[in-house]
Amino acid sequence: MAAALMLRGSASLLCKPRTVHAASLTLVCSRAMASKTPVGFIGLGNMGNPMAKNLVKQGYPVIAYDVFPEACKEFQDSGAQVTDSPADVAERADRIITMLPSSPNAVEVYMGANGILKKVKKGSLLIDSSTIDPAVSKELAKAVEKMGAVFMDAPVSGGVGAAQAGNLTFMVGGVEQEFDAAKELLTCMGSNVVYCGEVGTGQAAKICNNMLLAISMIGTAEAMNLGIRLGLDPKLLAKILNMSSGRCWSSDTYNPVPGVMEGVPSANNYQGGFGTTLMAKDLGLAQISATNTKTPVPLGSLAHQIYRMMCAKGYALKDFSAVFQFLREEENL
Amino acid sequence: MAAALMLRGSASLLCKPRTVHAASLTLVCSRAMASKTPVGFIGLGNMGNPMAKNLVKQGYPVIAYDVFPEACKEFQDSGAQVTDSPADVAERADRIITMLPSSPNAVEVYMGANGILKKVKKGSLLIDSSTIDPAVSKELAKAVEKMGAVFMDAPVSGGVGAAQAGNLTFMVGGVEQEFDAAKELLTCMGSNVVYCGEVGTGQAAKICNNMLLAISMIGTAEAMNLGIRLGLDPKLLAKILNMSSGRCWSSDTYNPVPGVMEGVPSANNYQGGFGTTLMAKDLGLAQISATNTKTPVPLGSLAHQIYRMMCAKGYALKDFSAVFQFLREEENL
Amino acid sequence: MAAALMLRGSASLLCKPRTVHAASLTLVCSRAMASKTPVGFIGLGNMGNPMAKNLVKQGYPVIAYDVFPEACKEFQDSGAQVTDSPADVAERADRIITMLPSSPNAVEVYMGANGILKKVKKGSLLIDSSTIDPAVSKELAKAVEKMGAVFMDAPVSGGVGAAQAGNLTFMVGGVEQEFDAAKELLTCMGSNVVYCGEVGTGQAAKICNNMLLAISMIGTAEAMNLGIRLGLDPKLLAKILNMSSGRCWSSDTYNPVPGVMEGVPSANNYQGGFGTTLMAKDLGLAQISATNTKTPVPLGSLAHQIYRMMCAKGYALKDFSAVFQFLREEENL
Amino acid sequence: MAAALMLRGSASLLCKPRTVHAASLTLVCSRAMASKTPVGFIGLGNMGNPMAKNLVKQGYPVIAYDVFPEACKEFQDSGAQVTDSPADVAERADRIITMLPSSPNAVEVYMGANGILKKVKKGSLLIDSSTIDPAVSKELAKAVEKMGAVFMDAPVSGGVGAAQAGNLTFMVGGVEQEFDAAKELLTCMGSNVVYCGEVGTGQAAKICNNMLLAISMIGTAEAMNLGIRLGLDPKLLAKILNMSSGRCWSSDTYNPVPGVMEGVPSANNYQGGFGTTLMAKDLGLAQISATNTKTPVPLGSLAHQIYRMMCAKGYALKDFSAVFQFLREEENL
Repeated sequence: MAAALMLRGSASLLCKPRTVHAASLTLVCSRAMASKTPVGFIGLGNMGNPMAKNLVKQGYPVIAYDVFPEACKEFQDSGAQVTDSPADVAERADRIITMLPSSPNAVEVYMGANGILKKVKKGSLLIDSSTIDPAVSKELAKAVEKMGAVFMDAPVSGGVGAAQAGNLTFMVGGVEQEFDAAKELLTCMGSNVVYCGEVGTGQAAKICNNMLLAISMIGTAEAMNLGIRLGLDPKLLAKILNMSSGRCWSSDTYNPVPGVMEGVPSANNYQGGFGTTLMAKDLGLAQISATNTKTPVPLGSLAHQIYRMMCAKGYALKDFSAVFQFLREEENL
Repeated sequence: MAAALMLRGSASLLCKPRTVHAASLTLVCSRAMASKTPVGFIGLGNMGNPMAKNLVKQGYPVIAYDVFPEACKEFQDSGAQVTDSPADVAERADRIITMLPSSPNAVEVYMGANGILKKVKKGSLLIDSSTIDPAVSKELAKAVEKMGAVFMDAPVSGGVGAAQAGNLTFMVGGVEQEFDAAKELLTCMGSNVVYCGEVGTGQAAKICNNMLLAISMIGTAEAMNLGIRLGLDPKLLAKILNMSSGRCWSSDTYNPVPGVMEGVPSANNYQGGFGTTLMAKDLGLAQISATNTKTPVPLGSLAHQIYRMMCAKGYALKDFSAVFQFLREEENL
Repeated sequence: MAAALMLRGSASLLCKPRTVHAASLTLVCSRAMASKTPVGFIGLGNMGNPMAKNLVKQGYPVIAYDVFPEACKEFQDSGAQVTDSPADVAERADRIITMLPSSPNAVEVYMGANGILKKVKKGSLLIDSSTIDPAVSKELAKAVEKMGAVFMDAPVSGGVGAAQAGNLTFMVGGVEQEFDAAKELLTCMGSNVVYCGEVGTGQAAKICNNMLLAISMIGTAEAMNLGIRLGLDPKLLAKILNMSSGRCWSSDTYNPVPGVMEGVPSANNYQGGFGTTLMAKDLGLAQISATNTKTPVPLGSLAHQIYRMMCAKGYALKDFSAVFQFLREEENL
Repeated sequence: MAAALMLRGSASLLCKPRTVHAASLTLVCSRAMASKTPVGFIGLGNMGNPMAKNLVKQGYPVIAYDVFPEACKEFQDSGAQVTDSPADVAERADRIITMLPSSPNAVEVYMGANGILKKVKKGSLLIDSSTIDPAVSKELAKAVEKMGAVFMDAPVSGGVGAAQAGNLTFMVGGVEQEFDAAKELLTCMGSNVVYCGEVGTGQAAKICNNMLLAISMIGTAEAMNLGIRLGLDPKLLAKILNMSSGRCWSSDTYNPVPGVMEGVPSANNYQGGFGTTLMAKDLGLAQISATNTKTPVPLGSLAHQIYRMMCAKGYALKDFSAVFQFLREEENL
């Protein structure tokens, strides 16, 4: 990634007067300077758990919460503090990261009966790393802002492995002046932290990328399958595509055809990687955003349907490159 | 392109006994050694004309034919010889290159009343650089083989500019022992000459690549359009995609959104480049091949339909990246 | 329509003890018996205006509101009463019909600062005839129920003409015991009133029908267009389809090809009828419902995209059968 | 079917001078008058066998051929004569019906080394009831015409049951003056014989109908599935669709949802009916025709791909209404 892209939000920007949000300025600055004060973390699932642990490793006192008591327990055993509700987290930390499975969960955690907003402190920085509808991110941001706090959406790219290794990519949307404060925390968990624009653009960048990824992956599977049926050797075809205009990440880095590459899910019966059901979820968000903005996305829409059909046909837990298998199996029947 | 890929068909292979085609062996070898003997060229259109001229530049006496007298005249004025029919070309040259717009044209030129096969010499090397149905290539090959001659399909990638500059890519299908003989001629017109396998695989490689290209291009247009509607800056979004898993040739080398890149058709009102009508033609070939081999290609099929609709809506002569314009125009209405 | 279908919710059911909603029972019954007490009507647009006027014609005192003062004024001039807000309507009428353009409008009218729920009386019957996301209908129903009132969704099929003539079809979702009370009002405005099931199923029935309608219409346009290109006479082809398994409402009642039928939009340059932009809206609702329920709808999804593209290409205000024109125009170019 | 439609080609037309084909006129008339002279029949498969037997029942001496000896043997045992090749059939009969599985088979039977054209008599009437590419029908017609004989395409609608019962529908393309002669034979095997226009239009009518049928069927499956997921009772939803604009043959006569109708494949685990693999074949023909005529058919194209995917996933031999099952199965997983 271009270094230039990463150098956004320098220190000098941080405490520059903000015309819009002047009221909360002092608190924001004091918060950002006290960098090893407690950090809240809500959502200790497959992704959230290792992310929170990376914060602990970097010396941050973490105040955590998860709706499942076992998840809390496991995390507590590793030495961190847990609380009884999102509201309790907000009472004890002025920087909070949330990592939740869906839009309704995020709404509940922020705006529910025991939600963050019940006890959020003025000037708090709330970073949502869930992948949700950007329109919901904007609603959450509005509600957070009314309480005098700051909201940023920062969905991640990269799976459980990247979460554990601390090299996720974060795509961040929100007020640019807060980007450095967010980045301080996010770099503990990721190697790339990209500023995308106003609130919701982090989500937008993620769903646009994943929509294009799904399209390219299915396209690669179709082109490879057709070529094989027409007599081409799969490895040779991949080489030709990769030096031609058909080249894409799905063909040159994550080829879906068994035997073409090593170390990718197609070499391991489509285990590991990025599950079909997760891709279907992201494509659903892309569809909803496209519908709401009246944007035609014919291939994105069909890609969504294909991953839905795959879920209905037993591929839900396989890597999304298994679309090659879904499309070809004819010879076995 | 990996050098390794290009080193196919070394000299030592050339005259190795061929078990299958032993009968025509002697003639083949004598033909290949006499390298500056006349070369036939049939089809002097936008692509064929500069290709044939590059052969002339390399010192080959070219015997040419085109169904349009004006095309012949223009070529003759440049110093080459022209004849009255494909049969006449075959009478005077034992290496012939054909560059024709469609399957029926190719069938006519090879098998028609005054076609090449009427007077083809035993051992002749016939190279078809047209982009046609691979099944038709196989039929032509059978008919050519019956006459004791050799057929190879060698469609090109790269447009008129590449044809003029002599840096086309050729994807070659046919008997491997003949590849060097074909390459000797093709390298006069192209910088990449890739051996793909048996007859028809050159076509197969080309249509698979172009199908994936069309899918990636439409996908890029959809993702960019959606992102812009959701508030992202187009240049920033392109950067994010290009360092992520959505990366593809259409996003990083030929971005369809005006203002993102220089020197591409999107920077020039979609003029030049690879026309929508040509892309629709190649996608039609992909569809026919997929239908004939019962291969599901859902996105390739929809991409074909989208380019068909674009042709029906006035985009036929614009570059195929104009799909971005086709999908977005809403705000102007 | 089968008479049997219409005979749901007989009088004997009306005041039968309801185990679930027993608390509000008495009020419901007293409300339903006083049938010519005032009826509220919110949303006096192209559809709402003639619908409300039909209630007036049947002798109901109507208390109306619309967000646009001109719409109120026009309605007031015709002799009805208008108020200042949805809350005011709720204060003065215990039966209210709402007819609004979209989900957010419905949420605002019911739950906004001056919304119905601010002053709704216990036992009131609130009927929403807007076409909106069934999930939003369910949310509205929950909120209404908390106030001790009853909510039913009752979207319509039929356009402005049917609204004026009083022969709309209503598809009604909600508690079955309330169906007769709703039907009493709805029959003033429509000739078919169909009970569909629990809250939200009225919307569900409508969007399922319209999704299938869109698919059949595009399919008919494609089949007619292809047949014409292959040399068939359009009228003869329509006859053959209509006596065969391709028969559908779009082919036999609303054929999209000019010259095949009289008295349909295709005979009048696609003016009148059901606008492309409205169809795109309904297909958007179908997509959102399908995404939320993880239901694969590949053709419905593509139909949505095609109507989106048509909106982007100048067809927004033409009848949705203009897809025939959208797909064919090639010969003019 | 409208009787009017069937009354084409009256007796008075039959021997009217034909300006175009005057040379073969006398023979045609003498052939048509001698109505119980031998009739050739080539292709004794699941459809051809009962069709040929119906000709025998009507008193026609049948001269038959099939490429599989067992098929010939079975037919011979029932009292008919069989021959050694299509050419032999042509030598002994001047009216021949062919019923073959695909375009290449038809080309072989007509134009192959022992094909009909080797020995066809001038003035013979050759009727091809195979479902093939209309472009191939036109080529066959040209070759037949060169021999002074007459070719008509007459594909059927209706399956094995209809073939046995003699109530197939024939869609006939060819010279109108010959329609009565063809009808004389075809009415022995079918109850509807429809004249469609010039050669190839019989095929065109069939593939247009079947494309629309496939689209409507998948659309019905999607709409029913979505409605059920949204809480609607399947029977009630079918009733609502059938009295609304979503009505189509697939919803009201052949509903794909188990439990909605009796006596259809969905009531019998999708056994019997019209196989998915046959639908995929017809959709492939529609695609090829659409590609060749540059006609956009986006839904037809996607329907084709869906039936291809179903074939690849084990549905090849189920009735094509099993698409409902293909799309829904999620709950079982």
